[in-house]
Amino acid sequence: MISTATTQVATRAKLQRAIAAASILAELSTDQKNAILRAMATALEANQEKILSANAEDLASSNLRASITDRLTLNPKRIAEIVKGIHAIVALPDPVGKTISETVHANGMRIRKLRVPLGVVGIVFEARPNVTVDAAVLSFKAGNAVVLRGGREAARTNEALVEILSSVQGVPEGAIELLDSSSRESVRELITSRGLVDVVIPRGGLDLIEHVMREATVPVIETGAGNCHVYVDDSANLEMANRIIVNAKTDRPSVCNAAEKVLIHRGIAEQYVPRIVKELIAAGVEVRGDAEVMRLAPAQDVRAANAEDWSTEYSDLKIAIAVVASLDDAIAHINRYSTKHSEAIVTENAEHAARFLQKIDSAAVYWNASTRFTDGGEFGYGSEMGISTQKLHCRGPFGLRELTTTKYQIFGTGQIRA
Amino acid sequence: MISTATTQVATRAKLQRAIAAASILAELSTDQKNAILRAMATALEANQEKILSANAEDLASSNLRASITDRLTLNPKRIAEIVKGIHAIVALPDPVGKTISETVHANGMRIRKLRVPLGVVGIVFEARPNVTVDAAVLSFKAGNAVVLRGGREAARTNEALVEILSSVQGVPEGAIELLDSSSRESVRELITSRGLVDVVIPRGGLDLIEHVMREATVPVIETGAGNCHVYVDDSANLEMANRIIVNAKTDRPSVCNAAEKVLIHRGIAEQYVPRIVKELIAAGVEVRGDAEVMRLAPAQDVRAANAEDWSTEYSDLKIAIAVVASLDDAIAHINRYSTKHSEAIVTENAEHAARFLQKIDSAAVYWNASTRFTDGGEFGYGSEMGISTQKLHCRGPFGLRELTTTKYQIFGTGQIRA
Repeated sequence: MISTATTQVATRAKLQRAIAAASILAELSTDQKNAILRAMATALEANQEKILSANAEDLASSNLRASITDRLTLNPKRIAEIVKGIHAIVALPDPVGKTISETVHANGMRIRKLRVPLGVVGIVFEARPNVTVDAAVLSFKAGNAVVLRGGREAARTNEALVEILSSVQGVPEGAIELLDSSSRESVRELITSRGLVDVVIPRGGLDLIEHVMREATVPVIETGAGNCHVYVDDSANLEMANRIIVNAKTDRPSVCNAAEKVLIHRGIAEQYVPRIVKELIAAGVEVRGDAEVMRLAPAQDVRAANAEDWSTEYSDLKIAIAVVASLDDAIAHINRYSTKHSEAIVTENAEHAARFLQKIDSAAVYWNASTRFTDGGEFGYGSEMGISTQKLHCRGPFGLRELTTTKYQIFGTGQIRA
Repeated sequence: MISTATTQVATRAKLQRAIAAASILAELSTDQKNAILRAMATALEANQEKILSANAEDLASSNLRASITDRLTLNPKRIAEIVKGIHAIVALPDPVGKTISETVHANGMRIRKLRVPLGVVGIVFEARPNVTVDAAVLSFKAGNAVVLRGGREAARTNEALVEILSSVQGVPEGAIELLDSSSRESVRELITSRGLVDVVIPRGGLDLIEHVMREATVPVIETGAGNCHVYVDDSANLEMANRIIVNAKTDRPSVCNAAEKVLIHRGIAEQYVPRIVKELIAAGVEVRGDAEVMRLAPAQDVRAANAEDWSTEYSDLKIAIAVVASLDDAIAHINRYSTKHSEAIVTENAEHAARFLQKIDSAAVYWNASTRFTDGGEFGYGSEMGISTQKLHCRGPFGLRELTTTKYQIFGTGQIRA
């Protein structure tokens, strides 16, 4: 009990400091923010030894799973990438202060709508130290205070990083706060502090996102889970379909825009199922199939998919394949099982493509291209904070601009409403 | 138990019908939607007797508070206003299908971002039959299915209205669903059906909004509560201040953009407090004051404000007045107690005004004008669905466009990511 109460008091004190900082950050000019960001990059470089030593302590802890060790590990090359990321954010245009619209009321009042920072942004994430810096730096550039709650495995690394960033001259006290990662109490406090925290962004696996979505009373931007589909139409160029499926699955299987499912039109199934199964297995992918796939590729090493497979994001070199009776059946299957992230159709038929692009209810819908392109960098927005799979506020890759909100300023000369 | 389970099953069936309808609505052209909307207006006019008779049944129920009776009552004039509202929505531009951006990737893919309907919109509201039609019609024009959960006092009126609107030729089954209002179970089911419902908008008093914000797992657009402030600076034109304060308080005290608090700079308090207190009392307003106001207006009928007053939205002919030491104290007080809806400064000092407009963290901030202007119609957007007091998705008055989301359509020729 004492520990819970202590965490609560400590968390609230940090949120109050963040609110005070947000008020100062909102008034910094673009030049001031960019100068501080450059100094942050320099400070990380200058303190590389300190960061690596804290990281080594984290890595020395027992019981780390191999996948966590890989994400958690820093080295000079990774620090250089993080520093490069800061300079990329310096180069991005500052959305804050931009006038979105300006109108004059019939009574003479001028009504200006402009872009302002959100205020206090909370990020809940796992053991990825690059996210710590990315999230802090993007939030700072958008004029927000950020409250970070990282994974406990990265506790010392995150403390070192936040201390270095916060110590840079010109960073207001409270601009970058790090919450205790030793219990879930700090997460609970962060995501239920409505009125203190303006938005919470979960970044990580499905469990983390589901937990935040379920428990939060603060507004949330849902990110990331991607059960992405490629549908091969009966009018597909099958050579192209091979290329797209193998790329979407194997280029980087652990990320959210990787393909997890393939649907094949019945009209080409007999010809294409054995071929794509063979291609995928040759590329090192474990293939699961529905009854029709099992029947059409009997000699090959395919496991029967169960009901759960269709809604599962493997994030691994695994894929499930089903045969569908029609384009509309493919659309219905995808709208039922997908996480509304990214889906693709491969077809030479423009009408089929148009129907798919219209009816699929996902953030990004592709005609004859790999789902792997759903990414802030690829879409031309520079750094991204995440990929939103919800429909409010932003959808798809989001970055600086989506870390802001708007405000109306009305300039009158004594107008009243009759 | 049986009743709860029955409500749950019935609600889910309605949500499933709404999802099916949303898919059809998303493909209707602007002309098709406008023709159906005009037919809805005609149908309401043609069925006026049926509506009024259902409304009379609702009004005949016992135990109605006077304030509810007023909101609930329909008559030919109010029905004519509702019909006029539908024609206003017909006249608004359709946001659906608009291209927001279109870029070409270095690899030749065309990346189009366009506006699409949200899908299924849930509205939880009180006993206002005009909201039933407004919400249904705005949602329809934006291509969404709507699921309405109105107050139980208006149950028969809402059933009649929804039946008439749904029976219009061309309205897909499920496009306008009405949930059972006899228990809270239907609200619970609606606001926790994540994945089925795309957004919930609560419209009503603070209790209703707080309940929805606390319990919802579906994304919410928070609306309406307005503890609005007018700050009278030491450089104010006091004649103008009188006019603005009396208008902002008395023009329509029950609405959310009415002023609830007045802050007065110490430098003019001795002169101005007795004067504004007198003006407000003459206008029929009950005045509460802090210790300084009580001291400066001793002969007048002012009650001592307690701690709770500063955060209370009276929605009535009541106001509380406090004296502040400085512009910054006024800003701090407002950012602490306001609901972030609408606030005004009265001053002739442009620097003070600029600081106030910058530092106040509310949806609409006024210089020398009444807070009463925060309204979709006044801001030039036509009909509004509500006034958002949150920062995500939309802030301030929102209407058709905010009932949509975006989607990326990517047109490739076989591109894969290297």
